[in-house]
Amino acid sequence: MSQHRHPGAPGRAGAVPALPDLPEATVARLPEYLRALHNLAETSHETVSSEGLANAAGVNSAKLRKDLSQLGSYGTRGVGYDVALLIDQIEYVLGLTQRRAVALVGVGNLGHALAGYDGFAGRGFRIAALFDADQERVGEEINGLIVRHVDELPRVAAEESIAIGVIATPAAAAQRVADQLVSVGVTSILNFAPCVLSVPEGVDVRKVDLAIELQILSFHEHRKATLTALPAAGGPALTALPGGLAVTESQEAIGT
Amino acid sequence: MSQHRHPGAPGRAGAVPALPDLPEATVARLPEYLRALHNLAETSHETVSSEGLANAAGVNSAKLRKDLSQLGSYGTRGVGYDVALLIDQIEYVLGLTQRRAVALVGVGNLGHALAGYDGFAGRGFRIAALFDADQERVGEEINGLIVRHVDELPRVAAEESIAIGVIATPAAAAQRVADQLVSVGVTSILNFAPCVLSVPEGVDVRKVDLAIELQILSFHEHRKATLTALPAAGGPALTALPGGLAVTESQEAIGT
Repeated sequence: MSQHRHPGAPGRAGAVPALPDLPEATVARLPEYLRALHNLAETSHETVSSEGLANAAGVNSAKLRKDLSQLGSYGTRGVGYDVALLIDQIEYVLGLTQRRAVALVGVGNLGHALAGYDGFAGRGFRIAALFDADQERVGEEINGLIVRHVDELPRVAAEESIAIGVIATPAAAAQRVADQLVSVGVTSILNFAPCVLSVPEGVDVRKVDLAIELQILSFHEHRKATLTALPAAGGPALTALPGGLAVTESQEAIGT
Repeated sequence: MSQHRHPGAPGRAGAVPALPDLPEATVARLPEYLRALHNLAETSHETVSSEGLANAAGVNSAKLRKDLSQLGSYGTRGVGYDVALLIDQIEYVLGLTQRRAVALVGVGNLGHALAGYDGFAGRGFRIAALFDADQERVGEEINGLIVRHVDELPRVAAEESIAIGVIATPAAAAQRVADQLVSVGVTSILNFAPCVLSVPEGVDVRKVDLAIELQILSFHEHRKATLTALPAAGGPALTALPGGLAVTESQEAIGT
């Protein structure tokens, strides 16, 4: 994706596209800034320095300034950023000025937790429909919503203008659910099932795999342990990778 | 967990560093490869081409080859990667050859879902202890474990050799829990609370914020909508950023 976009005068002169095409990493940090800004607004702060906001969001301030410059937000020297204005700008870019309707498919343990999660409402989302394929679960009420059979998805998705589908089914069911969501026009999917979904061009999938998060932490735990075990920087390695020997055999990168 | 152990000769030659210092993005993809490899192993595949594995893991094959080359795995031309060997190598690097004990703090809706999630056991982790600060919840049994009061954390963490702490408390409680985990020697934390944790150097924190995932999707939804609304490539913008006018005032990047 392109990296810099027109901090100039949006909407004027016809030179600026409707929405900046931001790097994925910047997009991922905007919600952090937004949360920090809302906290500041709630505690009656009208302006914030880049350092103050960067600390609150847990990033370094140079990165923050660069990110925000891509929205056309530069702050004012000696004053900082206008909190309310920056909230507006980020909410606009993230498309949070309308509250998006979310359909949640799969109301097992995780689905229950998601359906009952209060954190969505204040942050631009409304769980508008719950679905499950299990007749035992259909009809159950969670947080004021009745679980419906997944076959009702097409009708309900149209009625509720569903923008985002959340898949919290077992892995084996996830692809079929994704296909159903796509077929009713949903183009953004958050997938909690531990599997890779295949979707057509134009459909965005984000994946949250809880075991993968733990495995990434495990790497760091393992690494810290081996670093501690090393005699000194530059010392000989104590451990080799399994199969390390095999590397010396006649192996090379496989192309196509 | 690991199915095969040390086909090579770990500990010899001393030429391989204890553990490669991999880019974070590579580390994040290794669990995906691992999951795909386990699926292949379960379906009696002994080898896999880089393309086959890349497809199964949802990445492009050039990236996969580069990632795996950093582990010293190059596959064999015309044959591909040895599935069992590659599983060993990735599990070794991720530190999954020992099953890590996880302490979960906060057993509200999300904590319940995490405590009941079957997906951890097969992937290198064991939820070893559950904690909550709420006396009402202490004593409850979830998935065979009794919820204990968070004050018992120091004793239990030592007894169970807790390696990873998972925080599923409200945001307001999360920092205190993180401090408690750090004080008992936990150096890896998975944080589900919607807040930024401050931890000492050497402690790794990964964060899963469900609303943030939705907000990132919302950006893409919004972007797709504005692209659709544009008359043609290069056409004038239809929408302006809020506060766009202010950008023309005397503003500049704030440094310090």
